Amino acid sequence: MKINILTLFPEMFDIFNHSILGRAQKNETLTIEAINIRDYTTSKHKKVDDYPYGGGAGMVMSAQPVVDCIKDIKKKNKGKVIFLGPRGRTFNQEIAKELSKEEELIFICGHYEGIDERAYEYFDMEISLGDFVLTGGEMACIPIIDSIGRLIPGVLGREESFQDESFYSGLLEYPQYTRPEYFEGKRVPEVLLSGHHDNIRKWRRKKSLIITQQRRPDLFKKIQLTKEDVKLLKEK
Amino acid sequence: MKINILTLFPEMFDIFNHSILGRAQKNETLTIEAINIRDYTTSKHKKVDDYPYGGGAGMVMSAQPVVDCIKDIKKKNKGKVIFLGPRGRTFNQEIAKELSKEEELIFICGHYEGIDERAYEYFDMEISLGDFVLTGGEMACIPIIDSIGRLIPGVLGREESFQDESFYSGLLEYPQYTRPEYFEGKRVPEVLLSGHHDNIRKWRRKKSLIITQQRRPDLFKKIQLTKEDVKLLKEK
Repeated sequence: MKINILTLFPEMFDIFNHSILGRAQKNETLTIEAINIRDYTTSKHKKVDDYPYGGGAGMVMSAQPVVDCIKDIKKKNKGKVIFLGPRGRTFNQEIAKELSKEEELIFICGHYEGIDERAYEYFDMEISLGDFVLTGGEMACIPIIDSIGRLIPGVLGREESFQDESFYSGLLEYPQYTRPEYFEGKRVPEVLLSGHHDNIRKWRRKKSLIITQQRRPDLFKKIQLTKEDVKLLKEK
Repeated sequence: MKINILTLFPEMFDIFNHSILGRAQKNETLTIEAINIRDYTTSKHKKVDDYPYGGGAGMVMSAQPVVDCIKDIKKKNKGKVIFLGPRGRTFNQEIAKELSKEEELIFICGHYEGIDERAYEYFDMEISLGDFVLTGGEMACIPIIDSIGRLIPGVLGREESFQDESFYSGLLEYPQYTRPEYFEGKRVPEVLLSGHHDNIRKWRRKKSLIITQQRRPDLFKKIQLTKEDVKLLKEK
């Protein structure tokens, strides 16, 4: 996948030189390139923002540099143009899966008090990271690209497989344990040492169901419980 | 505020040398220090993970290095210990506000298929960024610290004020416009050029209400509409 990020802070995306997505870039499974919107301003003093019409606090990003930057990048990247903004669809695993199938994507990071409304017609989609305020779109763009990137075939190694993870099955994860058998006097649950695969599976399923029910009743309500699930939940 | 981040990838937090939080660190309004959990392992080969008991894909982070790292950092940082994980409370502006009042905080970034359950008793709180999977807790920690950091008095400059932003008032933002008056044939809405402050306020309020109603009915339902709001929504 090829990703272009249009931002006022391209150096922030050096983060993708590290860890799993850094490796994917070396393998050429993924290329991530950040473009400086400021390079496209026609203003004499390289300005990219101005006071809002109608007054109010803060600065608004001007339409011109953003729109000219999009037009230029679209010559080499035919992907969807995604604006990171608070009025967008709340990002979730479903959107991550959907976007991980694309070959190219363009992300736009807003800053300041927002972006001139007239730039919006160049955006195909607006995504919000969640119900909280950030200093800029970069801070939303980073985890969103991470979440999409790890779903691209070849990005995760075998040991990082993602079969059982939360939000895939709609359930939260069961507790995990690794060596040693005793840690600060606490032993690993007996069943996990038993080698009895079906009992282990049932124990994990039951824990997942209970944890989801307690912590995320909203997710739990959406689960289609199997007969076995109902039985597991009734057990002491 | 003093923040310590316990992570396997401390170099990822170089991102906080940039932009607004970078400036806050230079002003000493905020200090952010990332600590490598790997420095605390007692394993010969500097291992920090191992296979899960009971089988299954992926590796689990061992309790020992995480717990020893927490114990050491707690000598100099008395803040809440917050684990970034999928089973936590979903992060939102309310949590950001609550945590921005603390003087010290410790964040723990998990990796791989999770962390040995026996480490959890050292965590005061678990926070999830949203309903999606990330390569590691770092990717959640970054926007969460950004969102908390910008609320600390002195971090945002006057021009970056945050009075009107989404999720403060519970409404999404109204459209913003800046110069020029005409862009690609589109003019700034008349009212914003009128200089009539009360009309501008009403126009903005109405736009916010309509945008929230259309895009986030879940937020709109929670709004206590004023008499004026009801009137604005009835107007053509």
